[in-house]
Amino acid sequence: MQTQAQVRSANLAAVLGHLRDDGPRSRARLATDTGLTKATVSSLVGELVDRGLVAEGELHRPGSVGRPGTLVELDGRGVCGIGVEVNVDYLAVLVLDLAGAVRWQDRLAVDTAALPPAQVLARASAMIWQARTEHPAVGVTVAFPGGVQGSVVRTAPNLPRWVGVDVAAGLAGQRLPVTVANDADLSALAEWSAGPHAHVADLVYLTGEIGVGGGVVTGGRLLRGSTGLGGEIGHLALTPGDEPCGCGRRGCWETVVGLAALLRAAADPGDPLRDPGRDLEDRLAEVRARARAGDARTLAALADIGTGLGVGSAVLVSLFDPAVVVLGGYFAVVGEFLLDPLRAALAARVEDADRVVLSTLGFTAAVRGGAHVALQPVFSDPTTVPLMEAYA
Amino acid sequence: MQTQAQVRSANLAAVLGHLRDDGPRSRARLATDTGLTKATVSSLVGELVDRGLVAEGELHRPGSVGRPGTLVELDGRGVCGIGVEVNVDYLAVLVLDLAGAVRWQDRLAVDTAALPPAQVLARASAMIWQARTEHPAVGVTVAFPGGVQGSVVRTAPNLPRWVGVDVAAGLAGQRLPVTVANDADLSALAEWSAGPHAHVADLVYLTGEIGVGGGVVTGGRLLRGSTGLGGEIGHLALTPGDEPCGCGRRGCWETVVGLAALLRAAADPGDPLRDPGRDLEDRLAEVRARARAGDARTLAALADIGTGLGVGSAVLVSLFDPAVVVLGGYFAVVGEFLLDPLRAALAARVEDADRVVLSTLGFTAAVRGGAHVALQPVFSDPTTVPLMEAYA
Repeated sequence: MQTQAQVRSANLAAVLGHLRDDGPRSRARLATDTGLTKATVSSLVGELVDRGLVAEGELHRPGSVGRPGTLVELDGRGVCGIGVEVNVDYLAVLVLDLAGAVRWQDRLAVDTAALPPAQVLARASAMIWQARTEHPAVGVTVAFPGGVQGSVVRTAPNLPRWVGVDVAAGLAGQRLPVTVANDADLSALAEWSAGPHAHVADLVYLTGEIGVGGGVVTGGRLLRGSTGLGGEIGHLALTPGDEPCGCGRRGCWETVVGLAALLRAAADPGDPLRDPGRDLEDRLAEVRARARAGDARTLAALADIGTGLGVGSAVLVSLFDPAVVVLGGYFAVVGEFLLDPLRAALAARVEDADRVVLSTLGFTAAVRGGAHVALQPVFSDPTTVPLMEAYA
Repeated sequence: MQTQAQVRSANLAAVLGHLRDDGPRSRARLATDTGLTKATVSSLVGELVDRGLVAEGELHRPGSVGRPGTLVELDGRGVCGIGVEVNVDYLAVLVLDLAGAVRWQDRLAVDTAALPPAQVLARASAMIWQARTEHPAVGVTVAFPGGVQGSVVRTAPNLPRWVGVDVAAGLAGQRLPVTVANDADLSALAEWSAGPHAHVADLVYLTGEIGVGGGVVTGGRLLRGSTGLGGEIGHLALTPGDEPCGCGRRGCWETVVGLAALLRAAADPGDPLRDPGRDLEDRLAEVRARARAGDARTLAALADIGTGLGVGSAVLVSLFDPAVVVLGGYFAVVGEFLLDPLRAALAARVEDADRVVLSTLGFTAAVRGGAHVALQPVFSDPTTVPLMEAYA
């Protein structure tokens, strides 16, 4: 049995969910969508307005006669969610409002592997405070390149000092709900929550950075596994190879298709491409420029990465049978040179090699997914957001 | 909005579901379980009795005083589900009643690869008719060792003549609902629906026969993928190797850990173990007898299979992070000799190698899973079963 307050909260959530998934609409349409009476919907919309979650505007319907109806839509000025990414060589923060618009973002080059985790989290906390000066946040989600259980890092092949670190505890000073999740899982959710692949039930996201990560949506839900460590792909031997890996083993997929493999194959040690002090996006722009200029070594290196991606993706396609495989991180930046060899290798092994596409979210996928997750409690129970002062 | 009939049907399903998942119980307990009034529950139980789905008995509670309550339980005498398995070298049929008991089973050696599919289906149909003479069936599910879309075979590496065959159409004469599914998927459901791993949310089932198949339950649901072909593992290159495979490629996992690999390694061509005319279970009993007698060649062959299973399972464990990996088919029959090398290879790659266990369902897993699936419409909507004649 539900109490009256629970029913009210569920109905508020239903209205908010329709506005998110189906876009702005009239009260009459919301009544049809939810099966509730118009009077109930009006009361619910009034409360959502008072909580700063929806706004009203005039509905202009070309050619219609009579009094224009009023359009209800999500109010982006109200609450925001914050996504933070701790990665091997940078920190990033992104603020998403309830209507799905990016309100603020920042990125800072940080040698995460060389610093004590507490220092890195202190820097992240400073970035979050900066974001919060202008944007009222309801929660923070931290994306981490490893396996996470609860808010504690369990595996981190490229950041071994972080194993055992409670990431949420390091941000406790924010006095906000903090959740922690795998970066590729959050990126998969970002692809799934908006954009060309929104709500595709079966989707695999691959991110290429220093590490190679995977996030899998199957049957419309993120695959987590029994201990939250599912979807780990970078350290599988998906392709033949014997290079030593940061994890201590040999031949991991990451050693074949990760960023280090590309830079090693494309440039000699003295080449500025291999200077870890240079910004990654600059270096990737340089790789792309050389490839576009027809540099044979660069093109060969990219072709090898593409083939390795295709061979490994065949395993993922066979197991998960996704409608789409989205390539993110550096794979997307140089994707124009990866897709042909990738699809050739994939087509030799599975059907429909065209299901591999490039992400349009760039390196922001993980923070977008994080901010999206941070907003979910509002959609689950809008009464968690207090009434605005004028109405309280 | 739900009609009164829909509400009634949903309530009937809720009562039936509680009896299936939680066992026999009193009307009062059912009222607590479902949140419905005792009067409503009594009416629902009455209708379920009239449809032959539940039965009543006396509740004996040791030490209690006063009038004994009446216990309600699923009625196994009523409707049954039929599972049929078309495999490379046999046909099998199993009848499961609503209470989960096996009512009938049969198995027939058939060289499926050599016969036209229509002839094989005609034999299967004869077996189904025999099963139905004593057991009232509500549906049939056919397990097939390949990829199936709808009721049509899409991939069948070991039965290439079956690609494109509509299996349900071949059994249309039964005039029963016929569904068709991958054999390993159905086996995974069988493990998940009853027994020691019932309702484990994340479970991988591996079956070893001529082919090697996989069924994956993730987050409590069978992984199907975007086209129903997910979970295909036998033809992945999960272990190093270059043997030609029935599918036309080389190095598939099946060529390393499939039954043919074991028999080839364990015995020379003239050995009765390699006589395809002998019953498979007899041959496996012989393998086990030789291993128990300490035959070095047999033990070495089994150890290699175990290692190959461990290396490949590491990929599956990393991707799906299952709480349990269940080994079925021939893997279970000779499992006592596989588990040590398997767990050693797995432990070198992932945590918790003890999560691999042997199936106790033997070669009946797929037909059990099929019969279970055939019964599901009754649990979803008990009104699909007509009232018994005495009450109609």
